[in-house]
Amino acid sequence: MSEYKALKKECYEANMMLPKLDLVIYTFGNVSCVDRRKGVFAIKPSGVPYEILKEDDIVILDFDNNVLEGKMRPSSDTKTHSFLYKNWIEIGGISHTHATYSVAWAQSQMDIPIMGTTHADHLTEDIPCAPPMKDELIQGDYEHNTGQQILDCFNDKKLSYQEVEMVLIGNHGPFTWGKNAQKAVYNSKVLEELAKMAYISLQINPKAPRLKDALIKKHYDRKHGKNSYYGQN
Amino acid sequence: MSEYKALKKECYEANMMLPKLDLVIYTFGNVSCVDRRKGVFAIKPSGVPYEILKEDDIVILDFDNNVLEGKMRPSSDTKTHSFLYKNWIEIGGISHTHATYSVAWAQSQMDIPIMGTTHADHLTEDIPCAPPMKDELIQGDYEHNTGQQILDCFNDKKLSYQEVEMVLIGNHGPFTWGKNAQKAVYNSKVLEELAKMAYISLQINPKAPRLKDALIKKHYDRKHGKNSYYGQN
Amino acid sequence: MSEYKALKKECYEANMMLPKLDLVIYTFGNVSCVDRRKGVFAIKPSGVPYEILKEDDIVILDFDNNVLEGKMRPSSDTKTHSFLYKNWIEIGGISHTHATYSVAWAQSQMDIPIMGTTHADHLTEDIPCAPPMKDELIQGDYEHNTGQQILDCFNDKKLSYQEVEMVLIGNHGPFTWGKNAQKAVYNSKVLEELAKMAYISLQINPKAPRLKDALIKKHYDRKHGKNSYYGQN
Amino acid sequence: MSEYKALKKECYEANMMLPKLDLVIYTFGNVSCVDRRKGVFAIKPSGVPYEILKEDDIVILDFDNNVLEGKMRPSSDTKTHSFLYKNWIEIGGISHTHATYSVAWAQSQMDIPIMGTTHADHLTEDIPCAPPMKDELIQGDYEHNTGQQILDCFNDKKLSYQEVEMVLIGNHGPFTWGKNAQKAVYNSKVLEELAKMAYISLQINPKAPRLKDALIKKHYDRKHGKNSYYGQN
Repeated sequence: MSEYKALKKECYEANMMLPKLDLVIYTFGNVSCVDRRKGVFAIKPSGVPYEILKEDDIVILDFDNNVLEGKMRPSSDTKTHSFLYKNWIEIGGISHTHATYSVAWAQSQMDIPIMGTTHADHLTEDIPCAPPMKDELIQGDYEHNTGQQILDCFNDKKLSYQEVEMVLIGNHGPFTWGKNAQKAVYNSKVLEELAKMAYISLQINPKAPRLKDALIKKHYDRKHGKNSYYGQN
Repeated sequence: MSEYKALKKECYEANMMLPKLDLVIYTFGNVSCVDRRKGVFAIKPSGVPYEILKEDDIVILDFDNNVLEGKMRPSSDTKTHSFLYKNWIEIGGISHTHATYSVAWAQSQMDIPIMGTTHADHLTEDIPCAPPMKDELIQGDYEHNTGQQILDCFNDKKLSYQEVEMVLIGNHGPFTWGKNAQKAVYNSKVLEELAKMAYISLQINPKAPRLKDALIKKHYDRKHGKNSYYGQN
Repeated sequence: MSEYKALKKECYEANMMLPKLDLVIYTFGNVSCVDRRKGVFAIKPSGVPYEILKEDDIVILDFDNNVLEGKMRPSSDTKTHSFLYKNWIEIGGISHTHATYSVAWAQSQMDIPIMGTTHADHLTEDIPCAPPMKDELIQGDYEHNTGQQILDCFNDKKLSYQEVEMVLIGNHGPFTWGKNAQKAVYNSKVLEELAKMAYISLQINPKAPRLKDALIKKHYDRKHGKNSYYGQN
Repeated sequence: MSEYKALKKECYEANMMLPKLDLVIYTFGNVSCVDRRKGVFAIKPSGVPYEILKEDDIVILDFDNNVLEGKMRPSSDTKTHSFLYKNWIEIGGISHTHATYSVAWAQSQMDIPIMGTTHADHLTEDIPCAPPMKDELIQGDYEHNTGQQILDCFNDKKLSYQEVEMVLIGNHGPFTWGKNAQKAVYNSKVLEELAKMAYISLQINPKAPRLKDALIKKHYDRKHGKNSYYGQN
């Protein structure tokens, strides 16, 4: 029996949530999760429809993108995942989708402004949209450079990946992450909902303001602060 | 057996309607209901996903927010519910969601105008959007003050909570209520539909007028007036 | 056994299509059908949710709105139905919904322009939006006058009820009809789809033109003309 | 047993995907597929609802539109299909729908601009919208001329049908194709998603730019280029 059985199971189940949550059609998306102790991660194979995906199809790689187990080719976005796992040592799972409203904001090349408490329950910042990559980087090691593009965006905007667990790649779409694969997928769904809410809000009132600082702080802290009182602990 | 069994059942079943009616994802919402004779109310526990929520997880509190029964922490919005039960003595249930179109209007900080008979079948006024709270109130007893904010909004606009069973909290989202938990949830669903209809109407025709007074009165009265002829009695 | 059993069954089954086709929530809608030989029609009882509606709850009335069979109060819109059956002697079924996009156009008080062949496959005219009623008519026999309002709108615009089987009541919502109840419901669904398509088309291109006459004629005739070649005959 | 059994099965199953993928209501659409060796194609019968469609109802025709097998009248769009099969000898299946967002762009008479990598994963060009036909062509052999209209559009814009597997007919709706019926339906679904994404993107930011050339090339090539690395081969 594979020594990666539990990791493959986590990865498989998180991937299967994407179509169930209406975040992908056909093969549009991929989720991975990491085993930090072993220095490996599990990811969806490339181009396999969710209806026929099996737990055993999940591919295991090390952080240098060497396949350790699995008969299939890993997701074409694999190098973006490994780049993030290498650089952001506290994340346990990554999810990438082409969900409609998230992609629409990415295609509009605009950050999603923080407009309400639904947003502040999850993060205190606008959801960043990384600008499109320079041509020479696109023509180079594209998926590796996509990881670099995310990192640069977070550095430029002085964001913390522990607090902001989501990003839009300009003209492409969303990447989200979290302590495990399930949380990464949760963030994909929340992002899609925030993207839809912000879109409609600005259609109703193009001058609608950002959420005021006191409310941002209050809602984030009651869920994530040291005196948080949301949820069961 | 718990003396609150019936109350917990009503509360549980009303909470479970929220995801079924597409009003919430994950843990975004909570419903409560009251037993006026006993001076207690039942509410969803905080942060528990609907898929695993059980009837026995429902928490029973008095109006001063003391837990009388239940092992879990009650909803983080509990003090808003108790505040409303204390001040509005005829309501039997309260529902809070983050439904998409309702939140979008709340984020736009605009009342939802009464534009048609679907609206007038339920209330004769624009659906009020309470302005965001002052910073010192946010930093204070926030959820209690949210209840106060709703009350102030109704006083300022001279609205009756028996006739207008719904409100938007600016930048946050909707609260609705009614004679029991089921009616409160019904109002959440109706509000979401009215919010979507008004949004699309104004996209089609930004100058579309409010409903004329005679139609407002006619539709409200045929359902709620003393000579009402809608429904079975 | 009731002599109206077949009529009640047709009425019941058509009503149950409304929630299945996502045209109504709760009790927002009603369908009727007629037996011309007997001079009676069957209609949904007022305010009964679809989940608990039974075939036996359907009410039978004559065209003067006298209940001939049924223990429940008929739909509050009954007099609009009877008015149309009396005046338009070739229709066999009527459907009334509060479907979202249809209502939005009604609230915008605008005709739905014919913009494509999906529309022309069903009718050659813009979908008429009847202007709101005069106050004295609203305060009078409202539901009867709603029927009159539809008739006046068709007379003013020189429309044929056999060719245009749908109308929007300004600020209220859609009524549709057809040779039987099933066709009336079909028209409610088609109208909702045309309403959504026209809305999005005009959002994309506010100057998008009406469909040209030759295409209107071609698509209508291939389905409804004397040399029609659409469908099996 | 019919010598066309396999072809009819492929055609039937692809047609049944249309309602399942929310691309059609009622009878709004048709899919065909071809047997190049035998010089025949299979197509949905005209006006038959998907709920009652049976594999045996599928009609077999030659490229001159003579029915070779089947008791029902073939789709009213049959001549458009046969025209495309005759002229574009590498396609194996064609799908036609009235999907909402695709039709909305067709009604707006605008090409769908390439705005992101979801689009570039499938084609490198804007999705063409063929202008409405001249009146004399509409009044002539309309469905045959619709095929000609598609061909002319591809010639005018110097597009390759092997690379661009989709088109909008102005004021009408989408046609898509591919190596077989299943791929044609896949392209109908992808087109609908691209149409929705582009619509929302331009609502958010009317000045959002087209995707830059380097990204168009990169995404198309990683899936379709000679060194493609997407999917399993």
